Amino acid sequence: MAAKLKIAVLGATGYSGLELTRLLLRHPLVDKPVLLRRPDNQNSDPLKKMGKGRAPSENGNGEINLADIFPALSGNGKYPLEPLSWSSLKQKGVELLFLATPHEVSRALVPEAAARGIRVIDLSGAWRLKQARHRAIYGFTDADEVTAAELTRKAVYGLPELNGDQIPAATIVANPGCYATTVILALAPLLKSGLVDRERGIIADSKSGVSGAGKEPSPRTHFVSVADNLSAYALFAHRHLGEIAEQLQLRTEEVTFTPHLLPIPRGILSTVYVRLKQSTQPAKIETCYRDFYKGKYFVRVFANPKLPEIQFSLNTNYCDLGFCLAPDGERLVIVSCEDNLIKGAAGQAVQNMNLMYGWSEEAGLL
Amino acid sequence: MAAKLKIAVLGATGYSGLELTRLLLRHPLVDKPVLLRRPDNQNSDPLKKMGKGRAPSENGNGEINLADIFPALSGNGKYPLEPLSWSSLKQKGVELLFLATPHEVSRALVPEAAARGIRVIDLSGAWRLKQARHRAIYGFTDADEVTAAELTRKAVYGLPELNGDQIPAATIVANPGCYATTVILALAPLLKSGLVDRERGIIADSKSGVSGAGKEPSPRTHFVSVADNLSAYALFAHRHLGEIAEQLQLRTEEVTFTPHLLPIPRGILSTVYVRLKQSTQPAKIETCYRDFYKGKYFVRVFANPKLPEIQFSLNTNYCDLGFCLAPDGERLVIVSCEDNLIKGAAGQAVQNMNLMYGWSEEAGLL
Amino acid sequence: MAAKLKIAVLGATGYSGLELTRLLLRHPLVDKPVLLRRPDNQNSDPLKKMGKGRAPSENGNGEINLADIFPALSGNGKYPLEPLSWSSLKQKGVELLFLATPHEVSRALVPEAAARGIRVIDLSGAWRLKQARHRAIYGFTDADEVTAAELTRKAVYGLPELNGDQIPAATIVANPGCYATTVILALAPLLKSGLVDRERGIIADSKSGVSGAGKEPSPRTHFVSVADNLSAYALFAHRHLGEIAEQLQLRTEEVTFTPHLLPIPRGILSTVYVRLKQSTQPAKIETCYRDFYKGKYFVRVFANPKLPEIQFSLNTNYCDLGFCLAPDGERLVIVSCEDNLIKGAAGQAVQNMNLMYGWSEEAGLL
Amino acid sequence: MAAKLKIAVLGATGYSGLELTRLLLRHPLVDKPVLLRRPDNQNSDPLKKMGKGRAPSENGNGEINLADIFPALSGNGKYPLEPLSWSSLKQKGVELLFLATPHEVSRALVPEAAARGIRVIDLSGAWRLKQARHRAIYGFTDADEVTAAELTRKAVYGLPELNGDQIPAATIVANPGCYATTVILALAPLLKSGLVDRERGIIADSKSGVSGAGKEPSPRTHFVSVADNLSAYALFAHRHLGEIAEQLQLRTEEVTFTPHLLPIPRGILSTVYVRLKQSTQPAKIETCYRDFYKGKYFVRVFANPKLPEIQFSLNTNYCDLGFCLAPDGERLVIVSCEDNLIKGAAGQAVQNMNLMYGWSEEAGLL
Repeated sequence: MAAKLKIAVLGATGYSGLELTRLLLRHPLVDKPVLLRRPDNQNSDPLKKMGKGRAPSENGNGEINLADIFPALSGNGKYPLEPLSWSSLKQKGVELLFLATPHEVSRALVPEAAARGIRVIDLSGAWRLKQARHRAIYGFTDADEVTAAELTRKAVYGLPELNGDQIPAATIVANPGCYATTVILALAPLLKSGLVDRERGIIADSKSGVSGAGKEPSPRTHFVSVADNLSAYALFAHRHLGEIAEQLQLRTEEVTFTPHLLPIPRGILSTVYVRLKQSTQPAKIETCYRDFYKGKYFVRVFANPKLPEIQFSLNTNYCDLGFCLAPDGERLVIVSCEDNLIKGAAGQAVQNMNLMYGWSEEAGLL
Repeated sequence: MAAKLKIAVLGATGYSGLELTRLLLRHPLVDKPVLLRRPDNQNSDPLKKMGKGRAPSENGNGEINLADIFPALSGNGKYPLEPLSWSSLKQKGVELLFLATPHEVSRALVPEAAARGIRVIDLSGAWRLKQARHRAIYGFTDADEVTAAELTRKAVYGLPELNGDQIPAATIVANPGCYATTVILALAPLLKSGLVDRERGIIADSKSGVSGAGKEPSPRTHFVSVADNLSAYALFAHRHLGEIAEQLQLRTEEVTFTPHLLPIPRGILSTVYVRLKQSTQPAKIETCYRDFYKGKYFVRVFANPKLPEIQFSLNTNYCDLGFCLAPDGERLVIVSCEDNLIKGAAGQAVQNMNLMYGWSEEAGLL
Repeated sequence: MAAKLKIAVLGATGYSGLELTRLLLRHPLVDKPVLLRRPDNQNSDPLKKMGKGRAPSENGNGEINLADIFPALSGNGKYPLEPLSWSSLKQKGVELLFLATPHEVSRALVPEAAARGIRVIDLSGAWRLKQARHRAIYGFTDADEVTAAELTRKAVYGLPELNGDQIPAATIVANPGCYATTVILALAPLLKSGLVDRERGIIADSKSGVSGAGKEPSPRTHFVSVADNLSAYALFAHRHLGEIAEQLQLRTEEVTFTPHLLPIPRGILSTVYVRLKQSTQPAKIETCYRDFYKGKYFVRVFANPKLPEIQFSLNTNYCDLGFCLAPDGERLVIVSCEDNLIKGAAGQAVQNMNLMYGWSEEAGLL
Repeated sequence: MAAKLKIAVLGATGYSGLELTRLLLRHPLVDKPVLLRRPDNQNSDPLKKMGKGRAPSENGNGEINLADIFPALSGNGKYPLEPLSWSSLKQKGVELLFLATPHEVSRALVPEAAARGIRVIDLSGAWRLKQARHRAIYGFTDADEVTAAELTRKAVYGLPELNGDQIPAATIVANPGCYATTVILALAPLLKSGLVDRERGIIADSKSGVSGAGKEPSPRTHFVSVADNLSAYALFAHRHLGEIAEQLQLRTEEVTFTPHLLPIPRGILSTVYVRLKQSTQPAKIETCYRDFYKGKYFVRVFANPKLPEIQFSLNTNYCDLGFCLAPDGERLVIVSCEDNLIKGAAGQAVQNMNLMYGWSEEAGLL
């Protein structure tokens, strides 16, 4: 039996990082992941210097157990968090590092990992965008832009259903944004088919559960603010818009993207509106999707006129797609659902790992 | 002190009817409403004949108390439900009848009320539509269409902010649909202004709490089906589409309307997308809304770039409007919120009554 | 027509304070309340010195409008927050001050108000407890205990159904805790009747919506922590235990009180367990409750075996009581429900005001 | 490699049955389960005769696919439901039958399975109770009681942590009730230890998510009835009371059990109150639990004073236990949590199967 892959996770104390850790602990082809926290020497800590990375509660010995932060993990087994140390990672033979960290942290750490020959799957937005104008929203410095230019080029946008050919050899995989995954997968087949009248605009009205907003307490994520509510936010200004545009080769003016905050913990439903160039039969649309996603295990195309709902893909790595065509045959609505923490984050990261190491795409994900 | 108006409510056992009863019980200008149920002689009962109107639990004496069905009403005061009897209504001097009944029931009862000189505010969809092709979705018979033709013409669509001039003299007020209220109020000022490029299509992506689906238990309204979920339904086929088109003088092909079921008890948020004919300043849009709704107490226009959320209008009769304009000045998103049981149903019915009797529009609604 | 009472509210930016403001704005016998914030001179600000009272967002002119913090209030009317100034309050003729502030703030401000002849209804726990050992949990200083001794004696525990005779003349009303209200009202009739076997212990298992935990964002009130969850907290150590014991004249060892955090915004249900001295008929229990609460408008006793649910009293000032007796006639379970922000806070404060000024108990509360 | 066990499931269209099917599909030691529905010949159908077992929607060919009922299963693989046929089961070599059916159905089918040498794990309450007075609540006929007497004796109550020695050889395993599992596991160690003063009574205040009430739509499970609500029900009269009493060897008068309906889809938290005979140290209580559950993988004892919450055990087969002791050392509160569909139903059924076939207790459950 072959030795299992040695991996590490930084950021297991966040929602995506926890989900990732859970998936990796069950994955048959990897060793129990090394769980990392920021280094003890705080002055030299890139995370600390940026004021990021709250300290999780330590026990008397300065040890931190992930199960103390997430008691759902408690009971059987220990999950100590070690300070990040490159030499220690090399010594342990870690080949692949998952970053479930804020984008500034990922931006700082990926070059360090790359310099040491450690492959990275980064769940932040730091390395997803090729075009500087799209990256601008992240506020990287000019210096950073110069330093990171080569790695930015090398980074592969880790959407397996689109970029499955580039992922196996990638050293840096930029794991897609949760919203972006639903919207890109909904639109890619149609845009490739040439059926869409791009002149008339594309609209993605997306609704996400609260875990997508992260674990940091704020007035916006207070239970009383979210429950019995729905709100739209970041209109024309959400970070995922750039990813959608780049991956679909659209100008940002061609896509209107409106995220909403749903009163549920997790799950995304995107309702996507396009106009077709001419009146079309539903069967042609369904064929377009089925052909495009043939052999893609984690995209489920619903038989017309069935539509996916958020519940159907919760706790799975599926992105579910369904559609409805107007009686005029021109107005098309696509409904796209996923679990934002799995296909929208941790599950897709595992899927990317599976491709990077030549394993079955589904390994550890069923 | 003038005598208070005598009114009756049929359908107080449903969600809209209950909300209406609560509002009327607090209204300073009306007598405690006569609460009606289907007549005892079931063979001659138009409701029964249609198989509508479930019997609420009766007590030993055959009496039914609304507070037994909705214990929130219990404690102080009695709320008996009487069998509907036209002679009894006349004897009691009832001048105005509210119908919170299925549309078939409303379709059958309104002519009977009209024949007896009783004004009606009907909360169903039975009398909202002027055009037969829009009404087709309700499946009225040919015979009904002939019989009801005159009353259909006379019925006024009771959206006070649009039809405030026709409501005072109306004998039949067709209270608007909940979704339709949010969409029409979001679009009316813009369409009137001529700013909208109607050729490029209008999209209303609406999300509603579950009370909008009515009180009848079904797999779709089961808690476990709705919680932690979001689903789209009735695409291109929802009954409110006709109202939207008629009131805004649009062809149905010009509006794409997608309702979604939210995991909350009440409240609607509609995200409405339009394209403007040319690049426009936000101030011009805000002015357009402020001018149109000047003096309209129950529409609140939010100062750009603030957006309403569902919570803001819960338990009120407000419809809240806000908008966001793309950097290109052409793509405009309007967010419209209301409490579907109040501005979307019972509150609007009271607002209509206030106009019908020359009272302050806000009476009983603050 | 008599002049309306002039009142002020400090703390309208919290959940209880907002609810209170809403009720007062609709109250027919009081002027629009003066809404207060901490004084501008922060060095002399008792709130600021204690590090309490976050600054709400100010507009360009340093003005703060409550409707900017709670957009539900927006649209019609202004709600400016003024810095607290005793001279200004006197000048405006304010006779009654509501404090919806942390207990340290209330502890500091009540003596100042008393010194100026301004009556106070305090919604915090600062003045509820007569016995120092119960007060210990609030951590007041020895100096404070001495200074505040007289006012502590004079303060009346504002539970109208129990202390209705003392409230009219009170200058300081300590508005009861939300949990305490449900538990005390559930137990008072039984304990007075002498039916209860106190030796065998009393248990109150209480469940509250999240607004009871306040508006401050924290990991505990994050939507994802609360949704799809239930947790018990503060076992044998909750602040309301002292109130329950004092008002019911019990030793704290006689009552076990366990609060739980429910995944709903508001509402409390307390399930209270007692043992009777001997086997008893349900009718006797019901009579015990009905006699005790005769004429008490805001306590609704449900006819056995009906039980209240949280929904029934939401958005009302009712406390609902129902009970179930075991077949053995000895084990008795009482279910007690209220809206924690109304009967458990703001509504009860208004009810107390009504009594203080000789008005109908229900004024402004129906 | 040994042949996998052949199994069948009747009732996969309910919540517990679906969860069970999901677990079995992932179990490494069993074949894909045969999914059963009621026989086609309805006159001879024991389910149909009793008016139980709604027909799930069939496709044009009379075939029923579980994925059409639960689209979460769709996409990869088929899940046809076959009519129950004993000869077909024998032909397929099915050795073990899971019944996730109403208790009347289980009562009728278990003798038929037993007669054919098929082992059964029954998730209903039909076979859980040894004492006729406890069984009375299920309303079995006198004839049934006679016929079923021997099998009733042979049936093993499938709570592995208590009856692990009897389960391996059992032919009929009566899978415990969801509430009962949390309460029995909370109390068993304490009662065995002799620390509890049983004279002073035991109280279990339990709160469950809505899936515990089953999939049948009803006014009680309507989203609007459950959301923003909490209600107590079946006081002194819940079916699980008998199980609790029998397994803990208590008289029903010694246990007060109050279930509540929580506004969440799944999860149970039971707050259990006991009095100890004398003042005790927390360490002794913790040791009592740790000793009792030593080697029991699926019970997690939390280190005092930590308490479990519902979220911690969701989607797992754990029952989590924590406790808090009053300052007097006599009053003890135990908090017990589980996922009602897993440890409270389907997961425990799989755990029982693992014991029946001598496999690792955790197989297929991690």
